[in-house]
Amino acid sequence: MKEINIGLLGCGTVGTGVAKILIENRDLIRSRVGANLNLRRVADIDLKSDRGIRFDDGVFIADAHKVVDDPGIDIIIEMIGGEGVAKDFILRAIDNNKQVVTANKALLANHGNSIFKAAAEKGVDLAFEASVGGCMPIIKSLRESLVGNHVKSMTGILNGTCNYILSRSTDDGSSFEDVLAEAQEKGFAEADTTLDVEGIDTAHKLAILTSLAYGMEINFKDIYIEGISNITPMDIVFAGQFGYRIKLLAISKDTGNAVDARVHPTMIPFDNLLSSVNGVLNAITISGDAVGDVMLYGHGAGMMPTASAVVSDTVDIARNLLSGTSGRVPLLSYQMENIRKIPIIPVDEIFTHYYFRFSAVDRPGVLSKISGILGDLGISIKSVHQKGRKTKGPVPIVMLTHLAKEADVQKALTKITTLDVVKDRPVLIRIEDEDEQD
Amino acid sequence: MKEINIGLLGCGTVGTGVAKILIENRDLIRSRVGANLNLRRVADIDLKSDRGIRFDDGVFIADAHKVVDDPGIDIIIEMIGGEGVAKDFILRAIDNNKQVVTANKALLANHGNSIFKAAAEKGVDLAFEASVGGCMPIIKSLRESLVGNHVKSMTGILNGTCNYILSRSTDDGSSFEDVLAEAQEKGFAEADTTLDVEGIDTAHKLAILTSLAYGMEINFKDIYIEGISNITPMDIVFAGQFGYRIKLLAISKDTGNAVDARVHPTMIPFDNLLSSVNGVLNAITISGDAVGDVMLYGHGAGMMPTASAVVSDTVDIARNLLSGTSGRVPLLSYQMENIRKIPIIPVDEIFTHYYFRFSAVDRPGVLSKISGILGDLGISIKSVHQKGRKTKGPVPIVMLTHLAKEADVQKALTKITTLDVVKDRPVLIRIEDEDEQD
Repeated sequence: MKEINIGLLGCGTVGTGVAKILIENRDLIRSRVGANLNLRRVADIDLKSDRGIRFDDGVFIADAHKVVDDPGIDIIIEMIGGEGVAKDFILRAIDNNKQVVTANKALLANHGNSIFKAAAEKGVDLAFEASVGGCMPIIKSLRESLVGNHVKSMTGILNGTCNYILSRSTDDGSSFEDVLAEAQEKGFAEADTTLDVEGIDTAHKLAILTSLAYGMEINFKDIYIEGISNITPMDIVFAGQFGYRIKLLAISKDTGNAVDARVHPTMIPFDNLLSSVNGVLNAITISGDAVGDVMLYGHGAGMMPTASAVVSDTVDIARNLLSGTSGRVPLLSYQMENIRKIPIIPVDEIFTHYYFRFSAVDRPGVLSKISGILGDLGISIKSVHQKGRKTKGPVPIVMLTHLAKEADVQKALTKITTLDVVKDRPVLIRIEDEDEQD
Repeated sequence: MKEINIGLLGCGTVGTGVAKILIENRDLIRSRVGANLNLRRVADIDLKSDRGIRFDDGVFIADAHKVVDDPGIDIIIEMIGGEGVAKDFILRAIDNNKQVVTANKALLANHGNSIFKAAAEKGVDLAFEASVGGCMPIIKSLRESLVGNHVKSMTGILNGTCNYILSRSTDDGSSFEDVLAEAQEKGFAEADTTLDVEGIDTAHKLAILTSLAYGMEINFKDIYIEGISNITPMDIVFAGQFGYRIKLLAISKDTGNAVDARVHPTMIPFDNLLSSVNGVLNAITISGDAVGDVMLYGHGAGMMPTASAVVSDTVDIARNLLSGTSGRVPLLSYQMENIRKIPIIPVDEIFTHYYFRFSAVDRPGVLSKISGILGDLGISIKSVHQKGRKTKGPVPIVMLTHLAKEADVQKALTKITTLDVVKDRPVLIRIEDEDEQD
């Protein structure tokens, strides 16, 4: 029997899941691969916590250097996370001619170009299925299953915490703060949720997918990012009245010579299957010139679903080693020499449909002032709804627009904010609705 | 630049789609693969029809033998379909040491074991992603992405014609016959729809997936198959009142030493995402011990979506050729020597939940007679509903059961049919509802 030796760096939640699968499903994996995948070394600075796994003597150690420098190890699985030592260990593993598996989206989004360059130069494989969408085979779909397609667009729900919060708010009207606090208490959400709720984690993933889809260098910094912390139950209810649900979407579209890539709360129609993806679940729709729309759906995070993807990558690489090949599928989906710098369109230049909610005093002439400013900037209103009239205080006025340019919309909202009849900064939520063509 | 030469057998709908992608997206494919994929030969007995493609001189010929025997061809794509010459050409291509791509589910379901054996003995790759679920990467997911998982179950909507008919009946109450006739007129449905509406096509696909998931020989003949031709708008409406939609499902479950594999109309709850898969779309949920549930969704048929999957297989094999390897991923997901004969449970022995509709005269004592027979056979009734009372003629009595054994259910229905107060054979529709545990 052939043997493939694996070193695991980091034995936290997902790392433990990976170890569990490699140990508990060892026979299953051998029956499929025709070789033993041996977890030879596991490094973690925390040697004490009980992970529910019995490692053989000498496997579990504190010093990750001893893993990446071990000449007997073929594949390094990096489960440390973050952009610090994880990067150093990955680069060192590559330098040692080891194949690498990682789930580290923050690292790849920010430093992927140089890491992939290093891997390509050394001719080692670097797999990262688990960096986006947990168990969903998104990376494999883009790199392999859709290889004959020009990808036209991708639309994804890629952060379970955000989707849980929005789903709960939709179901029972709870506020963002309440659901978040509850999710943290139950352990669904991290103590520091900035990366999640501000959309940054989603944008890390979108940066990776966008590179794979269009054959471009990873470009995280130009992705427009807006999180969900300002989404109120009121807007969720109004969205429902128009046949929409609000989801934090990662959106990416090929526009010819550039790419539209952005992350923001988005209204999508009920008949878009993504609107039915609830709780911590993730999903992504990829649209290609031949396939039409394909959707993948599943757990985007969590110990075992993520570990499943890591093991899938590990087996993929093991199969390459057993076949005596590497670089069989290019790292970023396109041959390195064909990867271009494709610009991401500044958000100011996008055209989309908008939902606005103004908080205005209930007085004749208000609508005329607001719609006058919108009209002056060429923003065409599709419908206006005054939502309930209180005897005192401001009332919500909701407007849906035809296609409008973001820069014009921002200018208009800034002007409208200065009206004395308008209280607070208006709410803006973008709409993705394929049935609305103008 | 490296060159991979391809021969296409059959240039009907999907074959034409394959040719289109290989020709029109040739540069895209080269930029990803790093080699030219050349469509060297296309064989079809119909040389006259306009396919909207300009082939180079000498490419398009009538004699398929000249393709499979051409020593310059590396990969044969079989798009002839059926179980006749398609089989002969595939075996001859294998014998000529050529790699093969096919979408021929009927052939693989019925003759796959011997075909895969021949391919394994010759050491050639045989890829068949397009045989199940069109563009959805189901085969790749089972063979690669879920490699670290014990598959627990699969539940799929795998026939677009059936799903279109059931969706339309659900939406507007049209009868099976009316929707079918309309679909045939519009060209969605074949002239002979037996394979589709009787569930046979779905069972072909299930036979292939079941083999891949559990590491067993393909066993089509033991799959229980029931089509949709007896599903009435009335049952669809009643299903809705219980929170269910009716879908033609392919179901497969690992039960330990055997597999439960069957195709039949099934009621599934609204909150199962499969219930929202409408029209000609397909979807499948795969449940694994690590991943939980993963769902794939997309066009399960049609020229370009199916062709996209064929091209994906072709590129996969081209990459193997370029890497100088074959058999990198075993044909049927498990190493040949690990593929077992696992029995499929006879449908009589399954336990599930049932919906019954009896057509009974509206007279005191009827319910007692029916429920008496069910009780005698140990079938526990969850609820009974008398649906509307006419002044004359029989009325529908609907019952939902707790878990019951199919053999007992069939015995009970046969007895109930003999009651003079019961008109017609009772309607039976099985229910898959994970929330119902007993």
